[in-house]
Amino acid sequence: MSLAIVLVSGGLDSCVTAAIAARRGPLAFLHLRYRQRTEKREFAAFSALADHFQVETRLVVDVDYMRQIGGSSLVDTTHPIPEDDATADLPTTYVPFRNANLLGVAVAWAEVINATDIYLGAHEAESHYPDCRREFFAAYERMVAAGTGPQTQVRIQTPLIDWDKAAIVRCGLALSAPLHLTWSCYQREDLACGRCESCRMRLAGFRRAGADDPLPYASIPRS
Amino acid sequence: MSLAIVLVSGGLDSCVTAAIAARRGPLAFLHLRYRQRTEKREFAAFSALADHFQVETRLVVDVDYMRQIGGSSLVDTTHPIPEDDATADLPTTYVPFRNANLLGVAVAWAEVINATDIYLGAHEAESHYPDCRREFFAAYERMVAAGTGPQTQVRIQTPLIDWDKAAIVRCGLALSAPLHLTWSCYQREDLACGRCESCRMRLAGFRRAGADDPLPYASIPRS
Repeated sequence: MSLAIVLVSGGLDSCVTAAIAARRGPLAFLHLRYRQRTEKREFAAFSALADHFQVETRLVVDVDYMRQIGGSSLVDTTHPIPEDDATADLPTTYVPFRNANLLGVAVAWAEVINATDIYLGAHEAESHYPDCRREFFAAYERMVAAGTGPQTQVRIQTPLIDWDKAAIVRCGLALSAPLHLTWSCYQREDLACGRCESCRMRLAGFRRAGADDPLPYASIPRS
Repeated sequence: MSLAIVLVSGGLDSCVTAAIAARRGPLAFLHLRYRQRTEKREFAAFSALADHFQVETRLVVDVDYMRQIGGSSLVDTTHPIPEDDATADLPTTYVPFRNANLLGVAVAWAEVINATDIYLGAHEAESHYPDCRREFFAAYERMVAAGTGPQTQVRIQTPLIDWDKAAIVRCGLALSAPLHLTWSCYQREDLACGRCESCRMRLAGFRRAGADDPLPYASIPRS
């Protein structure tokens, strides 16, 4: 069975994606550090997930240039993380062209380790980010075919693309994915803040799925 | 006039590309270090070219992960640089998916500084690299349109795409491009070796253009 690379940030979505990919065959895990605020906590979650899934082929790379380039509240600490609902066309948490950059690293690694599939947990249903859309991933896959060697065949797999957070939680529970090992908060590393966009979407997903989130929260807003 | 980013490695091709782009409007220069063997010499050439073209908006980023990923004699010092003519389908100097990774950084930066065009000196005529083909750049541009915000319009400009080295040298001389400030050798940083693939292609280009290469060489093979 051919090797699949999973992009693992350490969050809920990448955990469920890894659980889906693990049913298919052997895995390699890729984690990128781009000096986001919660980098250490996310890396700890990545390592715990890799141990859980018994993945030995791991690559952790620094893409500090994302901080140099700036333009996002996730990496630019002079911009506050928003705690209200997104209203702008493009949220301030958007990191410019992030998924294309992450996939670029993954495809280069795929060429070297002969992986045939790259899994990532993007979903367009609840996202305002242009690089989370199905049409973006389809265009990316065509670009890879045009830009790699004749022996390389890489498919971009986004099994969560049409799901909302409740569906992701339900699938994770059904597959016994280790959701307690994940981290989603954009702001804090000790307790999840419960207030940032990522915490609120995660909490709403568990609530709609009728399940309890195993993570500890500093505060949980009323629904 | 809108801003254009030029990918400037410091070599002959990027110098001539910059000279072409400079006729169009204001420029920003992007240079990537990926721990290739001649990184210091290439950075010196980049800086000299940026000074020559009076470009103040510069970004220099480290993409060390290319060395971590390996797979190329340019970044993996356990692989020798070949000195004979390329015969394999894919040369050992091929860095996996390099142009896609470089363009990913350029597009992220373009979103932040509102650049509308990205110039790079790729050409498919004499290249065996799959990510130097016209169809790759066309696919890349479509992927960018699908994956960036609605306010972003980025065109990938490859003015040298159909040219051989002789045509590039002729154009550089016609535009008074500062070819003496460039560096092309894959192996050495003091004198160009004259023997690696890059030196031999450059020397052949000058010879066919009927011009002298202003760089100092350790040895120049008979034509």
